[in-house]
Amino acid sequence: MSAAARFLLTSRRDVVLSGERLVAEYRLACTGAEARALAEAICVEQTVEFPRDLLPPGDLAGPIVGAVESMRDVGDGSTHLRVSFAAEVAGNSLSQLLNVLFGNISILPGIKLLDFELPASMLSRFRGPRLGRAGLRERTGVFGRPLLCSALKPMGLSAKDLGQLAYELALGGMDLIKDDHGLEDQAFCRFEERVEAAAEGVARANDERGGRCLYLPNVSGEARTCLERVQRALSLGATGLLVSPGLTGFDTLRQLAEEPAFDVPIVAHPALLGSFVVHRDGGIAHGALFGKILRLAGADAVIFPTYGGRFSFSEANCRALVEATSEKMGEVAPSFPVPAGGMTLERVPEMVEFYGEDVLLLIGGALHRRTNLASACREFRSLMECH
Amino acid sequence: MSAAARFLLTSRRDVVLSGERLVAEYRLACTGAEARALAEAICVEQTVEFPRDLLPPGDLAGPIVGAVESMRDVGDGSTHLRVSFAAEVAGNSLSQLLNVLFGNISILPGIKLLDFELPASMLSRFRGPRLGRAGLRERTGVFGRPLLCSALKPMGLSAKDLGQLAYELALGGMDLIKDDHGLEDQAFCRFEERVEAAAEGVARANDERGGRCLYLPNVSGEARTCLERVQRALSLGATGLLVSPGLTGFDTLRQLAEEPAFDVPIVAHPALLGSFVVHRDGGIAHGALFGKILRLAGADAVIFPTYGGRFSFSEANCRALVEATSEKMGEVAPSFPVPAGGMTLERVPEMVEFYGEDVLLLIGGALHRRTNLASACREFRSLMECH
Repeated sequence: MSAAARFLLTSRRDVVLSGERLVAEYRLACTGAEARALAEAICVEQTVEFPRDLLPPGDLAGPIVGAVESMRDVGDGSTHLRVSFAAEVAGNSLSQLLNVLFGNISILPGIKLLDFELPASMLSRFRGPRLGRAGLRERTGVFGRPLLCSALKPMGLSAKDLGQLAYELALGGMDLIKDDHGLEDQAFCRFEERVEAAAEGVARANDERGGRCLYLPNVSGEARTCLERVQRALSLGATGLLVSPGLTGFDTLRQLAEEPAFDVPIVAHPALLGSFVVHRDGGIAHGALFGKILRLAGADAVIFPTYGGRFSFSEANCRALVEATSEKMGEVAPSFPVPAGGMTLERVPEMVEFYGEDVLLLIGGALHRRTNLASACREFRSLMECH
Repeated sequence: MSAAARFLLTSRRDVVLSGERLVAEYRLACTGAEARALAEAICVEQTVEFPRDLLPPGDLAGPIVGAVESMRDVGDGSTHLRVSFAAEVAGNSLSQLLNVLFGNISILPGIKLLDFELPASMLSRFRGPRLGRAGLRERTGVFGRPLLCSALKPMGLSAKDLGQLAYELALGGMDLIKDDHGLEDQAFCRFEERVEAAAEGVARANDERGGRCLYLPNVSGEARTCLERVQRALSLGATGLLVSPGLTGFDTLRQLAEEPAFDVPIVAHPALLGSFVVHRDGGIAHGALFGKILRLAGADAVIFPTYGGRFSFSEANCRALVEATSEKMGEVAPSFPVPAGGMTLERVPEMVEFYGEDVLLLIGGALHRRTNLASACREFRSLMECH
């Protein structure tokens, strides 16, 4: 017997676990004996990463190794698998939760993370969205209709011109205005100048029309300066934040959402997250990633490319994503789905029909098809009010 | 003409660019007119995200929108595409560089980021690996052979027992000992207790045999406490760090690599990064991600699953990855490739044959197949010395 196995026989006696389990659901792109072997491999790979035959007898079904809860041949060449893990294995961080759910096995072909359920003790450690759907409605004063959002673009404009666009968009009745996610701190348009100009433009429009439009600058950038950047943005008048967790890391989003001093909503952008969802036989399901993981991480609203636009999500993908944004998860508030990516004024009625009123509709470049931006916004707004 | 277009005509005159370009190479899973349309879409999507027909005439080939440099029908149904972007568009952060290279288009199907080249002005902003291959050899005193590494596992052992394993592994002649990447701060084995016990075990073995083995605890976890966690680990005797950038975010790795106070090597673990590379028609090529992006981010060594193990990388994938770890990138030092994932003592000669001597060989659980761990290590070591 190996030294590690001898240690296991003694030190496992010290491991006192609560018995609470988290459950992960996977789609395996295989069936039968192959699927059974893969399921067993997942239980080991995501926990002890140790040859099973070297684990002491009787310890295999022990508290640390994952346990197969159920397997079902779906009939399309794939297998639906449920595996449970001791809550304590996922430790105390979002990072380790993601690691247990999909860390090493992201590298194995033919495994897709479909969904997961956390026990109450784990859920209570996640604050989730600071405001959520209800809080964002309170903050913007918008009830009974979708919230309207647009983006400051195109990259290449000066801070002053972006500030003027922000003014026109807010004057036209947008509820939220975000930076285009590619606006960072470029030499031709510095972060602080942009935030100051756009926040000023939005505030001026709010004064003129008695509006409560929020301005959300993009704060994705260097990890080292993240907190200072957000503090600076808020001091310059930002009233929300845009974060790309694929670029910053998921837990950076969580850090911003849980920081007591940052009392503003966060909208999550999907940059770089596509690789997790575009693969049928691998990656993470749309609902699990955009609906649940980003919500646990604290996104008040999650941008995703809607079906029928220039991206790749199907109607079914979008439906599943939206359902996951409000699925019951303990006290974690629902987040707003934000269908985007090639949205036009012409598609608004269809979008409202499909997504309902609990949605944040984002139209970017297409608003500029109208000569007058403020009137394009009013048209967008009127499509809500007459719905 | 839209307001934004009118602004463009004036404010673009203020944009003074250096003329330096970064170049991205993509594989498109289509050919002909479809590929040409996709190439044009990439140029817009990764920069202005604005309807092309709304951009002012003559501005399309301007400084901000990406430019198609070349397209080549590869003959297998795919197209090789080179696109260049103004260096200034990628701003000042690794996050924005990744965003320009693959942010939004990660969500489009049929696009794979194959490679990229940065101009000297951009490369000089990346410190890259603190030690790199040469520095890690200096630090460990190992020349003319592969470096040997093992992992503290399995999860479930007490800090005391992991400390004893660390002692035996170091006494057996390992050059580096890392935490298993799933060891975080679990209730059954706390971070500080583990780091203290393992660092003590390695230091004691180093004293006894006059060795210079390094100990690298896993510091992936909450973003909020990242710097404190690393400081604490170093104060407890850690002499290196293990980071999973897929969990922490790429720029968190960079932050640790560039922090002057943290004068230790960093080994990067591939947890959660699999979704970027397992997809033939999407994601990021193995060399670009593990060889170049992680190197820019500061990994002194990058763990990846070797061909022939329990994961999915082919020999060609591994070859391309290894080449990218030492490809000339300005002053950015080469990093060590770390083939792992089901390595055994029996495979060592084949691994040395395939990877050469500039490699860090990682054997984890398989060392425990020998009853005596220290003698298993000596066997591992002897396979190097007689090679």
